[in-house]
Amino acid sequence: MRPLMAKLITPRSEDYSRWYTDVVLQAQLADYSPVRGCMVIRPLGMALWENMQKALDRMFKETGHENAYFPLFIPESFLHKEKEHVEGFAPECAVVTHGGGQKLEEPLVVRPTSETIIYSMYAKWIQSYRDLPVLINQWANVVRWEMRTRLFLRTMEFLWQEGHTAHATNAEAEEEAIKMMNVYDAFARDYMAVHCLKGLKSDAEKFAGAVRTYCIEALMQDNKALQAGTSHNLGQNFAKAFEVRYQTEAGGLEFVWNTSWGVSTRLIGALVMCHSDDQGLVLPPRLAPTQVVVVPIYKENERETVVAAMNDIIKTLSPVVRIKGDARDGMRPGFKFNEWEMKGVPLRLEVGPRDLAAGQVTLARRVARDGVPAKQTMPIASLGAALPPLLEEIQKDLYDASSRRLKDNIRPVESYDEFKKVLEEEGGFLEAHWCGTAACEARVKEETKATIRCIPMGSSPASGKCMVCGELSPKRVYFARAY
Amino acid sequence: MRPLMAKLITPRSEDYSRWYTDVVLQAQLADYSPVRGCMVIRPLGMALWENMQKALDRMFKETGHENAYFPLFIPESFLHKEKEHVEGFAPECAVVTHGGGQKLEEPLVVRPTSETIIYSMYAKWIQSYRDLPVLINQWANVVRWEMRTRLFLRTMEFLWQEGHTAHATNAEAEEEAIKMMNVYDAFARDYMAVHCLKGLKSDAEKFAGAVRTYCIEALMQDNKALQAGTSHNLGQNFAKAFEVRYQTEAGGLEFVWNTSWGVSTRLIGALVMCHSDDQGLVLPPRLAPTQVVVVPIYKENERETVVAAMNDIIKTLSPVVRIKGDARDGMRPGFKFNEWEMKGVPLRLEVGPRDLAAGQVTLARRVARDGVPAKQTMPIASLGAALPPLLEEIQKDLYDASSRRLKDNIRPVESYDEFKKVLEEEGGFLEAHWCGTAACEARVKEETKATIRCIPMGSSPASGKCMVCGELSPKRVYFARAY
Repeated sequence: MRPLMAKLITPRSEDYSRWYTDVVLQAQLADYSPVRGCMVIRPLGMALWENMQKALDRMFKETGHENAYFPLFIPESFLHKEKEHVEGFAPECAVVTHGGGQKLEEPLVVRPTSETIIYSMYAKWIQSYRDLPVLINQWANVVRWEMRTRLFLRTMEFLWQEGHTAHATNAEAEEEAIKMMNVYDAFARDYMAVHCLKGLKSDAEKFAGAVRTYCIEALMQDNKALQAGTSHNLGQNFAKAFEVRYQTEAGGLEFVWNTSWGVSTRLIGALVMCHSDDQGLVLPPRLAPTQVVVVPIYKENERETVVAAMNDIIKTLSPVVRIKGDARDGMRPGFKFNEWEMKGVPLRLEVGPRDLAAGQVTLARRVARDGVPAKQTMPIASLGAALPPLLEEIQKDLYDASSRRLKDNIRPVESYDEFKKVLEEEGGFLEAHWCGTAACEARVKEETKATIRCIPMGSSPASGKCMVCGELSPKRVYFARAY
Repeated sequence: MRPLMAKLITPRSEDYSRWYTDVVLQAQLADYSPVRGCMVIRPLGMALWENMQKALDRMFKETGHENAYFPLFIPESFLHKEKEHVEGFAPECAVVTHGGGQKLEEPLVVRPTSETIIYSMYAKWIQSYRDLPVLINQWANVVRWEMRTRLFLRTMEFLWQEGHTAHATNAEAEEEAIKMMNVYDAFARDYMAVHCLKGLKSDAEKFAGAVRTYCIEALMQDNKALQAGTSHNLGQNFAKAFEVRYQTEAGGLEFVWNTSWGVSTRLIGALVMCHSDDQGLVLPPRLAPTQVVVVPIYKENERETVVAAMNDIIKTLSPVVRIKGDARDGMRPGFKFNEWEMKGVPLRLEVGPRDLAAGQVTLARRVARDGVPAKQTMPIASLGAALPPLLEEIQKDLYDASSRRLKDNIRPVESYDEFKKVLEEEGGFLEAHWCGTAACEARVKEETKATIRCIPMGSSPASGKCMVCGELSPKRVYFARAY
């Protein structure tokens, strides 16, 4: 016999932070590695990331982007060519000083992000307006030296994608930056079942080297925000630093306009924090590596018949759902139920001799639904037609719950005192007036640890007064404490 | 007007090595980067790698493997735990000595391969025989400090996959190592259209830390060999170094048996060197990112009609072939023909008003076939049925040519004098008797630059005498000069 499920999961109500770590470790999404701050992504976590990649990659290709791959190493001098960029990233860099047994003449930085190395290539590839736009994405690992790390949410090395585009005009770059924010928002909505806020970052929170940063922000179950994706209009900052110029149709010579945008394995952390519960992982069916698990239930002499029936069911359903069976011997069914619940499989089929004799199976949902019994029987013959829409219903339920939680936790506040009180007692996104100055923003951050998560897009009907200084505020912005 | 195709491709007969580089650069598979020894994989090269990945990943999953991801960095001390391993890899390492602005207590090596970091995790994950086998693969970048680099074939950083498995018995590990060699061989045959030799490496040529290394070896057009994939039986070397033990069913404690196996972006170099010609890239249809390109031919006033007809054809054929159109303005059709030939697209459809009026298009093959005219007309209505089998025929033709070249260039030699003469005059794989000692192997390498590429599997009917020392040789082995 295997040991029982090693540890229990700390309940959210007791310690949200420990609950998160317990879920990630117990569901075997990831593990700590012997390298400080670096994690190992285990097969379940990797399968989840691959499903995310597939969906995102398709969305990128549908919007005209191609993949390429640029070097892991960046000459240290490149980082210094864009002033704000180096200030933002130099303190976080891992630096290679030796190679092949020799000290290097110039140290190499392990990419924390690839603007510099990529735009140095664009300078070579782009000559004429006919070469534009360049719409390239890269799937890669990056390294940012972090002191306080956390599985998926903040690790020294992480996997991500970074889009890097070059355009003939500012308007086109702006359109691209907003388009990719919307792609991320659609991905979060349609695949992750997470309803995000979207908008513009304040200058203090924008990407180092960007003119404007757009973002999507998700709300976790502890009412803290998590930045889930960013898209930057880089203007001509990097084009000027790396001399990326093109000949216009009229014959002039202009700098290109760049954007960059990225999401990372951090999204897995967001997914866990958004949907999971005290039993473990909850996965939206569209991303779940296994959507349906079949557990056979039998006495020893029934094993052969029941497992054969299970395999028939799996074979029949494989074309319509991602399904697998768990015929491991020497384990009680209850143990298996717990394990698959822990691992977030949306649906479980229990196959036993009595049900089989009646041509049916027992169906259990990972997440209970109001008005639906915890377990139902279902004729085997109707599974093929019933399961796909049921999975879609579960997907929608998860999104609806996320959306409801977001809406319930957006809280307009009218004064700084109210802000502090609501932040402390309830959290969530606080909708408050802000004058637009870095001083008021910094004061709020220092005094409350809340930051401006995003400034909503478009013009607002309601101007007001900054909750901190009382000066004119063009619109409300969203504050929150964030991961 | 665009400038004409910038440079011509150096013919193979003039300078094979320059021809290779010209093809890679001109087809825009890859480019040099500002980081010495690192290349940039451009969109066409990346799309090709992604197609290779897809096919390999499916083959790995069909043989029971899952993907995971392990850290980029390896503590330097880990490398030292396996004696042969560190001797093989330490001289090639890139070393991170600083992070986050601080000097590190222990330097971190950028992974040249991941045995050490992965087996340190297996030590944590594997407790019992029930946890075995562990069958994990990783897609990743690795870094090996190379002084003389070459696009795809030998670069400081490259992309690859590395499988790492743990088994309860030596027999299972041996079976796995051979199975994966055969998976690589099948991939080379069925996707790359490359006929490889397969077999065992000599001790001098095996992986640093392995008990036995199996490999597939391909023959390039200049009659030099290229190692295309390797699969290692690691025995218990790493299990002992990292204390990876499991409790047996009987209750004892044993070290596990490991294998590792990998192929890399080097395969793209092999593909180029094997099939391409003086016009540029030739791609096997199963891997070609674009299988069919459609070039419209029109006078200005016909543009709209012809491009609309082209788009209809593309729409109809998209479900059955990977197809794209090239309606760029301001370029002559001949220029486009050259460009797509350079980029290796297997089939071209030319769509002009006269053909359209007759309900047909003109079809041109990238690679001429004996007895088939260079261009043929084909009714539009029959394209959907005709193109997929035609692409398969082209795939088979490429494999047959590769197979013929391999067979024509395996040369049995009976003496060391004959060996040197044949090696110099003809090259290819030289089948010669070898006594099995490192001394004779080293002498051949030093005197002729030829190495033992592989020792054929199984027992051989014909023993003989070592061509160097005259001692007994159990069987002939394959020597060649290699990339």
